[in-house]
Amino acid sequence: MSHPDSAGGASGSSRPLVPVLAVVGVGLIGGSFAAALRRAGQVGEVWGVGRQVATLEQARKLGLIDRPATLQEAARADLVLMAVPVGATRATLDGLAPHLGPDTVVTDAGSTKMDVVRAAREALGGRIGQFVPGHPIAGSEQSGPGAAFADLYQDRTVILTPLDENPPGAVGLVEQAWGTCGARIRTMRPGEHDTVLASVSHVPHLLAFAYMAQVLEAADAPLRLDLAGSGFRDFTRIAGGSPDMWRDIFLANREAMMQETAAVRRALDAFEQAMRQGDAAGLQAMLETVSKSRRAWRAGQPSPDTNE
Amino acid sequence: MSHPDSAGGASGSSRPLVPVLAVVGVGLIGGSFAAALRRAGQVGEVWGVGRQVATLEQARKLGLIDRPATLQEAARADLVLMAVPVGATRATLDGLAPHLGPDTVVTDAGSTKMDVVRAAREALGGRIGQFVPGHPIAGSEQSGPGAAFADLYQDRTVILTPLDENPPGAVGLVEQAWGTCGARIRTMRPGEHDTVLASVSHVPHLLAFAYMAQVLEAADAPLRLDLAGSGFRDFTRIAGGSPDMWRDIFLANREAMMQETAAVRRALDAFEQAMRQGDAAGLQAMLETVSKSRRAWRAGQPSPDTNE
Repeated sequence: MSHPDSAGGASGSSRPLVPVLAVVGVGLIGGSFAAALRRAGQVGEVWGVGRQVATLEQARKLGLIDRPATLQEAARADLVLMAVPVGATRATLDGLAPHLGPDTVVTDAGSTKMDVVRAAREALGGRIGQFVPGHPIAGSEQSGPGAAFADLYQDRTVILTPLDENPPGAVGLVEQAWGTCGARIRTMRPGEHDTVLASVSHVPHLLAFAYMAQVLEAADAPLRLDLAGSGFRDFTRIAGGSPDMWRDIFLANREAMMQETAAVRRALDAFEQAMRQGDAAGLQAMLETVSKSRRAWRAGQPSPDTNE
Repeated sequence: MSHPDSAGGASGSSRPLVPVLAVVGVGLIGGSFAAALRRAGQVGEVWGVGRQVATLEQARKLGLIDRPATLQEAARADLVLMAVPVGATRATLDGLAPHLGPDTVVTDAGSTKMDVVRAAREALGGRIGQFVPGHPIAGSEQSGPGAAFADLYQDRTVILTPLDENPPGAVGLVEQAWGTCGARIRTMRPGEHDTVLASVSHVPHLLAFAYMAQVLEAADAPLRLDLAGSGFRDFTRIAGGSPDMWRDIFLANREAMMQETAAVRRALDAFEQAMRQGDAAGLQAMLETVSKSRRAWRAGQPSPDTNE
């Protein structure tokens, strides 16, 4: 798994790609990033930043980090990964900004990008070029340092949304770091990222939460939940997601999401119209198009787990 | 697995619970019913009715049925299970009605009950008492006789919606047959069944189909589908369902379904209102209620597969 020829870094016994890595939020996402870079021999020292001493101590015992650090210290690392809920991005950047090393590169793992870029511009001002926004499409149902593992990003997609102010070296460092983790890099504009992720991740979560809320409000909710089967189980699995994380995402990406929910409502209108009219042929045609496409989607391929 | 003490039937070497069973539609549902009764020694002979000779021949080679039969012949069996799409219920009953044996009991496996009962009343008239409506909440992603297996109904729920005209013996026979298959019996009114199934099965399918249709209509659909992950995968799995089956269900149960979709739209309105207002605390409370309930749902228990 080592990458001795990583451009811009160095191999084995010489200088690693990231001499000092700081991870803010040493959970599944941040911890797995550190673990993958360490296994590849591409990191010198790993500092962990977090609010909970016990979590940092656990991360240290697991070998994910070498020592806890403050945000002020982290700001002098070669690379800083912010792996925090998107709502905590601004506060993290505010803590880093006054102490930011001249060559330090900061990146993030947030599920939305427009609001993260906005927060970064406000916090970093003229040093915005040091921030390279990113979003690894990977994760699992588990969380915390105990869930971290070096293979999490293997063959997963990481979306980067570089800014016009980013020097090529900063983008290159982040690309190489994720590449060392085994990830494929895709580059998009922040707005494009937010629209696509609203469509395939945030809106399904919102629909699952809203649907489930409605079932729970029914007078006969216990009977309904008792008779629910595997369709219900899979359709609502994502409604068990973290309230903190999804509150932040739903607020941060609401504009793109509401464009998508309006389109979903129109699609539902079309189905209901065909039902109301007893239009069996029309309904059949609509269902066939969808069913065929869904069955063809990554047919035969295991789908990636995502933290979306 | 044998039930030597099944009330009303008889054990091992003596008369089985169902001397002659006719199964109309020998696929996963009908074939598994036959296989479970045969394994328990509670069926004498099994006749299979279907439009496709090859399917019946496959069912015979698999030992699910002893021989093919016509609807006219099936009408003289002791028990007839109709395991056909709900839209084919009326035609099946029309074929049985003129030849129906005086002691023959007919049941079904349809996913809706109000329309099935209506069709049965029209087709059977004064002999409606011989029809006991049912719905096994079991199934799998597979279909056809090759997918049938005797354990399909083990620990699954079968809902019966008996009619006022059903003599106790008719209901008892159907209950015992499903009990022999290892299923739990629940008795409900047809309208109650349709409301509950609309809520926990039919509406999730409709939402998944409508959501997926909307994604496919987007100009950048290929990009969206390429970046979709495990949340999308699980949320849309049921949108790969059979167009024929779901066309029939969506038409048959549209009234109950539209009551439910109206409630889902109101729940979505409430979430979007909180998002629009930037009401983080309100959103958090809504998400926590749902997430907690979803995580508690059958926690630690494997969920049943269903054909819903």
